[in-house]
Amino acid sequence: MTTLTGHSIIAGSPTAGKLPGSAGVAAATGESLEPTYTYVDEDQLAAATQAAAEAFDAYRATSPAERAAFLERVAHEIEADGEAIVARAVAESGLPLGRLTGELGRTTGQLRMFAEVVRVGDHLESRIDPALPDRSPLPRADIRQRQVPLGPVAVFGASNFPLAFSVAGGDTASALAAGCPVVVKAHNAHPGTSELVGTAVTRAVAACGLPAGVFSLVFGSGTSVGQALVRDPRIKAVGFTGSRAGGLALVAAAAARREPIPVYAEMSSVNPVVVLPGSIGDGRAEGLAAAYVVSLTLGSGQFCTNPGLTFVPAGPDGDAFLAAAARAVADATGQTMLTTGIAQAFGKGTDALRGAAGVTVEAEGAPGQAANAPAPLLASTTTAALRDEAAVSEEVFGAAGVVVRWGDVNELADALRGLEGQLTVTVQAADSDHEVARTLMPLLETKAGRILFNGWPTGVEVGHAMVHGGPFPATSDPRTTSVGSLAIYRFQRPVAYQDVPADLLPEATRDDNPWGLNQRVDGRLRLAQD
Amino acid sequence: MTTLTGHSIIAGSPTAGKLPGSAGVAAATGESLEPTYTYVDEDQLAAATQAAAEAFDAYRATSPAERAAFLERVAHEIEADGEAIVARAVAESGLPLGRLTGELGRTTGQLRMFAEVVRVGDHLESRIDPALPDRSPLPRADIRQRQVPLGPVAVFGASNFPLAFSVAGGDTASALAAGCPVVVKAHNAHPGTSELVGTAVTRAVAACGLPAGVFSLVFGSGTSVGQALVRDPRIKAVGFTGSRAGGLALVAAAAARREPIPVYAEMSSVNPVVVLPGSIGDGRAEGLAAAYVVSLTLGSGQFCTNPGLTFVPAGPDGDAFLAAAARAVADATGQTMLTTGIAQAFGKGTDALRGAAGVTVEAEGAPGQAANAPAPLLASTTTAALRDEAAVSEEVFGAAGVVVRWGDVNELADALRGLEGQLTVTVQAADSDHEVARTLMPLLETKAGRILFNGWPTGVEVGHAMVHGGPFPATSDPRTTSVGSLAIYRFQRPVAYQDVPADLLPEATRDDNPWGLNQRVDGRLRLAQD
Repeated sequence: MTTLTGHSIIAGSPTAGKLPGSAGVAAATGESLEPTYTYVDEDQLAAATQAAAEAFDAYRATSPAERAAFLERVAHEIEADGEAIVARAVAESGLPLGRLTGELGRTTGQLRMFAEVVRVGDHLESRIDPALPDRSPLPRADIRQRQVPLGPVAVFGASNFPLAFSVAGGDTASALAAGCPVVVKAHNAHPGTSELVGTAVTRAVAACGLPAGVFSLVFGSGTSVGQALVRDPRIKAVGFTGSRAGGLALVAAAAARREPIPVYAEMSSVNPVVVLPGSIGDGRAEGLAAAYVVSLTLGSGQFCTNPGLTFVPAGPDGDAFLAAAARAVADATGQTMLTTGIAQAFGKGTDALRGAAGVTVEAEGAPGQAANAPAPLLASTTTAALRDEAAVSEEVFGAAGVVVRWGDVNELADALRGLEGQLTVTVQAADSDHEVARTLMPLLETKAGRILFNGWPTGVEVGHAMVHGGPFPATSDPRTTSVGSLAIYRFQRPVAYQDVPADLLPEATRDDNPWGLNQRVDGRLRLAQD
Repeated sequence: MTTLTGHSIIAGSPTAGKLPGSAGVAAATGESLEPTYTYVDEDQLAAATQAAAEAFDAYRATSPAERAAFLERVAHEIEADGEAIVARAVAESGLPLGRLTGELGRTTGQLRMFAEVVRVGDHLESRIDPALPDRSPLPRADIRQRQVPLGPVAVFGASNFPLAFSVAGGDTASALAAGCPVVVKAHNAHPGTSELVGTAVTRAVAACGLPAGVFSLVFGSGTSVGQALVRDPRIKAVGFTGSRAGGLALVAAAAARREPIPVYAEMSSVNPVVVLPGSIGDGRAEGLAAAYVVSLTLGSGQFCTNPGLTFVPAGPDGDAFLAAAARAVADATGQTMLTTGIAQAFGKGTDALRGAAGVTVEAEGAPGQAANAPAPLLASTTTAALRDEAAVSEEVFGAAGVVVRWGDVNELADALRGLEGQLTVTVQAADSDHEVARTLMPLLETKAGRILFNGWPTGVEVGHAMVHGGPFPATSDPRTTSVGSLAIYRFQRPVAYQDVPADLLPEATRDDNPWGLNQRVDGRLRLAQD
């Protein structure tokens, strides 16, 4: 059992920050939670990034088996402290025990998935174009390629997933899997959880005999330490999940560096749901509306994929959907939000919605008993107001939904076309709606990283086909995902080896293929077992 | 045979620009070449990007067979005008006929390689995670993934490869292969060549029945039209080959957009060559030096991969290498450079070298008879001067080489560690050098996109394993390449499909696999023929 120290962990060493800090806060009561987390100063931060830079060569030289074993050890060490981690996360976040127990499993499952990805080794993208000494007019050299890690990565923990998108979450797991040391800036909404998980990772680093600089965890102010971390020349990429303002500040800092670096910021999304007529025909409106409100209010609506904007057709079935959704929201009770600040931002966002021309408040639930548990809200509006009033399509982080009524399919398509980039778009469709859905698909593909049918966007499966990403401003870089095995590609770059003697070639590019990789030879995939 | 018009080609229509323009210039004589190319104004540019945006859905919906046939048709149409294209390129660029004939073949070969890449379809990255309805505690949805094109791409032609890195060069070929319409900003150093190639592409678009907006070619001032093109909200990515200042200006413009977009700028590199002792032992110094000077002066040194900086050991063998290289440079005659401006920049760059403390001019060749044919230059210096004098490691575009003498391996490694990112690093090594080379490899991998042994970096093979890229400032984005089949990934993004009904799934994600793709099922590659 780990005792909390309030310290950062710099390359394996618990380190008291030289600046005053802050303590965790119990979300449900507003009470301060021991201990106080001191903040690192610039020199301490630089010690962490320097250690990461110094650990880079040794860490990236690990074999797939070694690196996979390390990732599995991280999962194991987290599980060893699982009860304490979940208990502290419940206190700090106000999220329910069941949710956080599930999130812990998701976090360790994610680490194990990346261990398997590393073992399979397809991310190394082994490519061989053999020499053609007799080609005319010029012979072709022997050229090989593999992916190498970018270098030390800075990860910013998210408020709303204190485990799965935080210290040992998807960004950290994919960066470590790629061979990049990681410096995590803890989210100050769950410092104790962060320390516990960071301590588990640190144990895994030591147990696997890796250089301590492979992992550091620092506490500090989001603005100053965050900016300093992104500006540090030793940092080569950044993973972030959070607000649009926070993400854009990091993007700007990275772009202003002498050497620009990629920032993978997952920011804001209202996750449009398109209700097509067949899906609410034949008395199905009420059932669909109930399911909608479950997704809307799940986890107090604090999901990046919360369905904020729902397009419902005009007419009696749509009226029935809206009425049923309004009843369900009216019956709902607010749940504790992650922090006072987040609850206040929810209030500001819902006030902006109420004040927007053409927006009608359809229902409000009851505020919860605990602190920071504002009432869920349901509003409705028109496609005209969606177009004219910015507040309608801006993310309100929390359980606030806007139903946009649409008349014909052209009006719907125009409204969708006017939206910004999204993490997800959901289509509710019966078989009779497929013809319309087919015409909408190309448009939806330009708007979101994930398209789903007859489900709800909350709940992001960790797998090989998942995309948790999308066009700006859903993310700062639509070419990738922050969930799923594809995420490892964010932290790599290709290197070509031309006529490099066999004894100097990296394992991933060798003809004897010691790692048993699938290889692309002259452009054609060749499976290892062939 | 095409008659030159001096017009831009906006979505298939030859269009006189509304602004005054400029004519091509014969590099070897300085004479103006008919016709004058008028420049597009903002509205005309917007017409091109709007047509590209409107063509996007239809173009990206083409099947692999259709898109591959189009790319092959482009190659065919270029070949049909091959003689005229090469003749005009010779006049405009001053490059020799043989070189440009080869470059034409490289350009059409590149288009055909991408046709084959499109047919194989691995770039679509078909991924399927099948549903697990019985999984507990929660069932897993059916999730599939494919890559989709980003949208219209802006391409900036390079001065030094009027064919292979220009109107229908690698950026255009890879963007078209990915399914992105392209708007090319012609390089004003070879406008007639650009028009001829652009006309060929336009014929291919029409012959294949594609929307005319798939391709436009605009003439304009680099600064104003370039900036306007990158700022245009319809443009979703940018390909550029040219100077560091030019590339960074585009990067800054893209970062300042409301929606930032990726800029793939291939900029500057001095392509270090590391001569290890064994490679010049036993009387091999003279032969290696002769080969070095051939690479240094090839094409008047106007290659992104020109070996600008060569690390030669102290001692008699290194002295012999330097002396032999000096003799070869002294015997060399300047060849016509691409433009007067480029020749002047070469003069400034060599003046800065001459003026740098600790730099000795070892040899100068003779200027050429034609215009803009400055004398090749060879200088030598120390690792201390390399560290202290910025001019030593800055690219001088043209036939200017600096030999850096080093004492021991630590001094060499420190000098290499101090370098910026490069396109290539070359190692000259005998078997006896492998031990030292092995210790240098991890460092070299962090410095360059391509590592080659016992060859010369000029000459970039178009293939599947090639990387023509590297850490900043060699490029603005080290995660990719501008040459070779991997380049197609620059213009794509992943989309996930969750529980999408089978009749609405894109072909690339379907179980019946109509395109015969290799697919990744539950994380494991499955070849189509299995």
